[in-house]
Amino acid sequence: MIVPIEIRQPAVKRYDIVIDELPELHYDRKVAIVTNTTVAPLHLERVLEKLEAPLVEVIELPDGEEYKSMETVLQILDRLFEARFDRRSLLIALGGGVIGDMTGFAASLYQRGIGFVQMPTTLLSQVDASVGGKTGVNNRWGKNLIGAFYQPEAVYIDPAFLTTLPEREYAAGIAEVVKMAVMFDREFFEFLEASDLKDPAVAVEMIARSVRLKADVVNQDEKESGVRAVLNYGHTFGHVIENETGYSLYLHGEAVAIGMVMANELATNLGLLSCREAERIRDLLQKWGLPVEYTVRDPRAFYEHFYLDKKSMNDRIKFVLPGGGIGTHTMRDDIPAEEVIAVLERFAEAK
Amino acid sequence: MIVPIEIRQPAVKRYDIVIDELPELHYDRKVAIVTNTTVAPLHLERVLEKLEAPLVEVIELPDGEEYKSMETVLQILDRLFEARFDRRSLLIALGGGVIGDMTGFAASLYQRGIGFVQMPTTLLSQVDASVGGKTGVNNRWGKNLIGAFYQPEAVYIDPAFLTTLPEREYAAGIAEVVKMAVMFDREFFEFLEASDLKDPAVAVEMIARSVRLKADVVNQDEKESGVRAVLNYGHTFGHVIENETGYSLYLHGEAVAIGMVMANELATNLGLLSCREAERIRDLLQKWGLPVEYTVRDPRAFYEHFYLDKKSMNDRIKFVLPGGGIGTHTMRDDIPAEEVIAVLERFAEAK
Repeated sequence: MIVPIEIRQPAVKRYDIVIDELPELHYDRKVAIVTNTTVAPLHLERVLEKLEAPLVEVIELPDGEEYKSMETVLQILDRLFEARFDRRSLLIALGGGVIGDMTGFAASLYQRGIGFVQMPTTLLSQVDASVGGKTGVNNRWGKNLIGAFYQPEAVYIDPAFLTTLPEREYAAGIAEVVKMAVMFDREFFEFLEASDLKDPAVAVEMIARSVRLKADVVNQDEKESGVRAVLNYGHTFGHVIENETGYSLYLHGEAVAIGMVMANELATNLGLLSCREAERIRDLLQKWGLPVEYTVRDPRAFYEHFYLDKKSMNDRIKFVLPGGGIGTHTMRDDIPAEEVIAVLERFAEAK
Repeated sequence: MIVPIEIRQPAVKRYDIVIDELPELHYDRKVAIVTNTTVAPLHLERVLEKLEAPLVEVIELPDGEEYKSMETVLQILDRLFEARFDRRSLLIALGGGVIGDMTGFAASLYQRGIGFVQMPTTLLSQVDASVGGKTGVNNRWGKNLIGAFYQPEAVYIDPAFLTTLPEREYAAGIAEVVKMAVMFDREFFEFLEASDLKDPAVAVEMIARSVRLKADVVNQDEKESGVRAVLNYGHTFGHVIENETGYSLYLHGEAVAIGMVMANELATNLGLLSCREAERIRDLLQKWGLPVEYTVRDPRAFYEHFYLDKKSMNDRIKFVLPGGGIGTHTMRDDIPAEEVIAVLERFAEAK
């Protein structure tokens, strides 16, 4: 006997990304702001002033990728249980990508899911992590290997958060913006080449365009079975770099910048990208202070490392590359190991 | 500036519940069977005979609700990382509700979600836990407080699994069947009263009818914002009983049986259920060996305990009761504490 089960769900999940001064927020439910020791002194007071709720808990975590772990998420959950949060309660993520990923993940787990709101304070999290619903933590096997797809109720991007952001972190955000442009939008890439990306008005446009591009991709493919994997451009190499350097030498966006340069070299060798365009991408990254070189110590070990990255399926490694110049993309899982290792060897010589 | 985000997703999630002899299963991806030390000696060999896959890992856990914890789930995940499972890999839950809940939860977490299949081996998990996608673990604050909504790819209910099930566990499954009938289907309740529920042919019909009823409810309300909460009939009281007795004295279904009797007494006092019908329910439970009495040591402490149960929203406790006799239901969050405590006091005197 077969009983077919059909579970209906809404065909569309909606939420707004508000790029503007943080509005007054009134909630009729318990709220916990999850933030860290770097962001709290800079922005917490302002957020608290704007916020009205029957209970506001502040959960202040230590700052750093090394705390992006299941242990920290379980600590967040414990605080919520202590404060008797219920299924209507709300989490607010006030911070960068690490805070956003962990807060969203905690929200997805608490009593099988409560609401959460993002207030991304870094350029990187504003343009990237705040759209798409990827949440999770790292473990000893790698980055973001445990997590959930879980969408926020709303995202508030206040450009004022950026005024306190260190230059290096701002540049790391630009890396993800460049990624979007190279993969999807040649005209946007040219806008980036021609603009002062530190000008506040340019920043708002840059954030809005990136967010829209990413939203289009996520909209087509929430669970990353297809086009969403394109967002991993630069990340396949970048994750290995981050892992090899203990997640401490490079910011995520910096590792992605190097990863894009590596991917571009592979694309150039495969005839997918001209040397001139590879150089334009490299120049744009360098112009805003991003690293574009990395000394690969052991090309084969680096290659082996890909297998631990979850983006490989059935032990075939998938590379995301410009498909035919800037503004286009392709995904290839048939690139011979030797082709990739040749690129890594070039980086082994570099210095 | 507001960027509206719309994420499309399939409007219907489908899977089949197959109530029949376990078919031959051929997978082209890595498979891990998660089971426990009680079930493995009884059924693992047969499942392995039917299964073909490039890699089959067996993860054998200790048996018992006390192992339904985040620690155990993290151990499952570690085994998957060690065996280099990827995003196409599959978990099979072979066991009762504890195994199903943890395996589904682990599947939801691994690289943000891989497939899983249920092979429920207890009557309780066949009629209840295998439908609906609730997964999760317990913690020191209570049961199922951390988890995810996550649907299986398929459920295989082989009635042969029941031949080795201890009588007491079989009865615990009947409690959940009675729950479905009392809430939703008077005719089904009368079928249960009139049938030999240990007869294998009756069992198949009982399982199929329960699964269909539950599927209808889940279909209307996957995330338990409305009618799905009706499935908590007997559970609000039952969870406190389980917690007070350290999750060791009663099986879940047994605690639910007592919980239904308590809920019925409350319903009777409120004029929602006649004494005669309350007795019919009690008699049916008792006939199959389920407990219907419990000595409440401290009625106020018992009542306070509800607040830790996640089914309460904003500190209002919600009771699910027969709404106007057998086969109907109502949800009430306006019952004065004293009404509930009066019922609990009756159980404090009992013995």
